[in-house]
Amino acid sequence: MVPRVLELRQSVLTKNDALARALRTRFHECGLLTLNWVSSPGTGKTALLVHLLAALRTAGHNPIALVGDLETDNDAVRLARSGAPVRQIQTHGICHLEAQMVEDHLKGWNLSDFDFLFIENVGNLVCPSSYDLGEDVRMVLLSATEGEDKPLKYPKLFHSADAAIITKMDLAEPCEFNRDLAAANIHSVCPGVPIFETSAKREEGIELLCEWIVARRSALYTEA
Amino acid sequence: MVPRVLELRQSVLTKNDALARALRTRFHECGLLTLNWVSSPGTGKTALLVHLLAALRTAGHNPIALVGDLETDNDAVRLARSGAPVRQIQTHGICHLEAQMVEDHLKGWNLSDFDFLFIENVGNLVCPSSYDLGEDVRMVLLSATEGEDKPLKYPKLFHSADAAIITKMDLAEPCEFNRDLAAANIHSVCPGVPIFETSAKREEGIELLCEWIVARRSALYTEA
Repeated sequence: MVPRVLELRQSVLTKNDALARALRTRFHECGLLTLNWVSSPGTGKTALLVHLLAALRTAGHNPIALVGDLETDNDAVRLARSGAPVRQIQTHGICHLEAQMVEDHLKGWNLSDFDFLFIENVGNLVCPSSYDLGEDVRMVLLSATEGEDKPLKYPKLFHSADAAIITKMDLAEPCEFNRDLAAANIHSVCPGVPIFETSAKREEGIELLCEWIVARRSALYTEA
Repeated sequence: MVPRVLELRQSVLTKNDALARALRTRFHECGLLTLNWVSSPGTGKTALLVHLLAALRTAGHNPIALVGDLETDNDAVRLARSGAPVRQIQTHGICHLEAQMVEDHLKGWNLSDFDFLFIENVGNLVCPSSYDLGEDVRMVLLSATEGEDKPLKYPKLFHSADAAIITKMDLAEPCEFNRDLAAANIHSVCPGVPIFETSAKREEGIELLCEWIVARRSALYTEA
């Protein structure tokens, strides 16, 4: 890229960061824990999130979700089956979510009524890593069908994660997924990050994930 | 994005297009058919390409390959097992290949010695669609594990494809992959595009793909 483009890109990122900081302050004033979910297209973010939203609601919580896609509102329709309030962000060609898109889609929600805000990013292992959305927790998802080497090939995204989720563990055997190698690769770019193994199909690993997320929110507001 | 960024992005794309046109002319002077392979991360481009390169060599052809990744040369090492000359392009943070990167990595190859140039793009369903690499054929790959809705969610990339390849068909059953729905979705954004079903693991669908690619080259040089 030419230097002028890099310079302007830097200015876009600086503006995004400032807005993200303002959003984070607002979210904390309302008692929210905000989670940014990033992965490849097809990793199964939506399928897992449907179960997680439902599990949180069963446990007495009030989660909401924003979901980003280039086109279609398929995923919002799927997520809404959990019973949680959900909004679709259509980016129309932009390959990642930005803080401004998040802010634009919060209008009309009284954020103090909720305790968790999930932001399901556009499926992309590169660009979302540069855009802070005001989240407290960034979770990167990797499916058992994608190959264990993804953390090494996309280190920036994995490095910025607060937790990693392996999805589609029901397919681990037919895919000959090597869980130890995947964990070693994740930890080589992000030492010590917690790893959750899940299967939306078999509804496995949801409870543990739910507990961890609830504990993160408690820790945030106990510290504050 | 602010207008100035859009304007500069346009200028980057215009420069890329000019270089891509020059590359295409050069490739045609050398008798090459050039193929740009695009997909999500983890779709299995490399696994399939290893078999395809080997099959082309067995049939008496001389393919070469460039493979793009943000980091690592894992995929070049894997592709080289086919016996074909292969070079890795490390983009160091750029989420797609550009024509300049292709040109930079051709040095030292006498292109007239070869008949097929495969360019395996960075795993990303968005940005590669904007960058012409001088290819004759753009092939989009979708795995049976990713979900049938990807063509609807990433229409620009699927719309620009000359052929679609479904990978990991050996996992179609455990994934409950609906091949008719996938085909209908692909054809809704790219009417009439040929679809190849493949499994690198079972070495299925390679021969048909090989035949189609060889016929594309024959057609190109018969027309010319």
